[in-house]
Amino acid sequence: MISINIIGSGNVAQHLISVFQQTETIVLQQVFSRKRENINHLVSDDTIVTHYSDLKPADITIISVTDDVIAEVSNQLPFENQLVVHTSGSVGLDALHAKNRKGVFYPLQTFSKSKSVNFREVPLCLETENESDYLVLETAAKSISDKVFKISSEQRQSLHVAAVFSCNFVNHLYQLGKEICDENQVPFEILLPLIQETADKIKTLSPMEAQTGPAKRNDQKTIEKHLSFLDDKNKKAIYQLLTQSIQKYNG
Amino acid sequence: MISINIIGSGNVAQHLISVFQQTETIVLQQVFSRKRENINHLVSDDTIVTHYSDLKPADITIISVTDDVIAEVSNQLPFENQLVVHTSGSVGLDALHAKNRKGVFYPLQTFSKSKSVNFREVPLCLETENESDYLVLETAAKSISDKVFKISSEQRQSLHVAAVFSCNFVNHLYQLGKEICDENQVPFEILLPLIQETADKIKTLSPMEAQTGPAKRNDQKTIEKHLSFLDDKNKKAIYQLLTQSIQKYNG
Repeated sequence: MISINIIGSGNVAQHLISVFQQTETIVLQQVFSRKRENINHLVSDDTIVTHYSDLKPADITIISVTDDVIAEVSNQLPFENQLVVHTSGSVGLDALHAKNRKGVFYPLQTFSKSKSVNFREVPLCLETENESDYLVLETAAKSISDKVFKISSEQRQSLHVAAVFSCNFVNHLYQLGKEICDENQVPFEILLPLIQETADKIKTLSPMEAQTGPAKRNDQKTIEKHLSFLDDKNKKAIYQLLTQSIQKYNG
Repeated sequence: MISINIIGSGNVAQHLISVFQQTETIVLQQVFSRKRENINHLVSDDTIVTHYSDLKPADITIISVTDDVIAEVSNQLPFENQLVVHTSGSVGLDALHAKNRKGVFYPLQTFSKSKSVNFREVPLCLETENESDYLVLETAAKSISDKVFKISSEQRQSLHVAAVFSCNFVNHLYQLGKEICDENQVPFEILLPLIQETADKIKTLSPMEAQTGPAKRNDQKTIEKHLSFLDDKNKKAIYQLLTQSIQKYNG
């Protein structure tokens, strides 16, 4: 049995609380939340603590709070020389206070409070300072997910940048596509199967192999037609830059 | 029963041949292919014609060839005053020769020869010159798909531009994300669940509501970190432009 404390009550914290509670080999020892009502729908009252001083050492203490306050929270912990990890994709190990042994437990998925997630499919990116801590963290991670990866701070940073390109920016392109549809009284739902297929394809093809469209075909006539169709400066600039980028790779 | 001729042997043509053959209310009358061997794995020999002069009138003749040769092919047809449609997203009605009644039958999906597609889920965008032709085309379309839309040439043009943003450009962002992973020895597969979730989310949320990430949060510290991480000029320019665009919409 591995004992776990969770500090925080946000989306990630709540998903971790739920999944660890359902896991037989894990004891969810304590959950810290400034406000009891944020999590008392999830855990029994005697598991919740609202003051740092009430926290007890556990095999793993998971700090799942916004990036900016990780350092401060880790400083508030009332114990020393325990394994303490954060769940952030963009914060280094060094943000954690040196009085405890440091690590990272980064679930690479977008979580919405209202939407349940199959945690066995969520990639968990782990990092610790020492190997023995890694084994404990890995055991806990594998108890909830089938996709556990050892990822250094530098690698995690690159993964975070890659996720901005492949997810945040992608969603924004969906938005621009929707706007173009809206402006022309075309239902955006017509595009949904194509959007889905585009995401599905890269499970079996590399994105390079999966690329289609006028830029890939170097179909200058269609590109010019599209550019003159777009009168919004911002969309035009994005169309040009991404078309050039595709042509660079496929030229 | 509606009789259909199909001109062409590419991806779209082959998928249409397969699905119409399996449809009871449709008679696949003739298929034109310059080379018999391109389609004789799909249709019986007596259905294939290799000379335009052998084509007979049908309720609908579907020209499914590359954009550039639609005009020429429509000119070669040996009959007049029949309903003739093309399958292109970016070509107007006027590309078709005036000797026949014109229309468009545009399936908005990416087709790969090797991958089967559930046609009932494929949006079909229809257009004709006259209403009576529309009814015939709509009946044929509804026999193979649950998603049939009446879309004008102008709307189809906008849909095509929107698809470039939401699919072609999206796939390129997957590629840039993969490159960042490759350069840092991180398996790209770690990102796949997040990519999938990003595509899934917009089935229930608008892209605006679904937007996450440093640009949306206006997290300037992380944006600066990412920009200094990226040393490739092209990726940096794309990061900046898309970040600005997100901030414009969410600011």
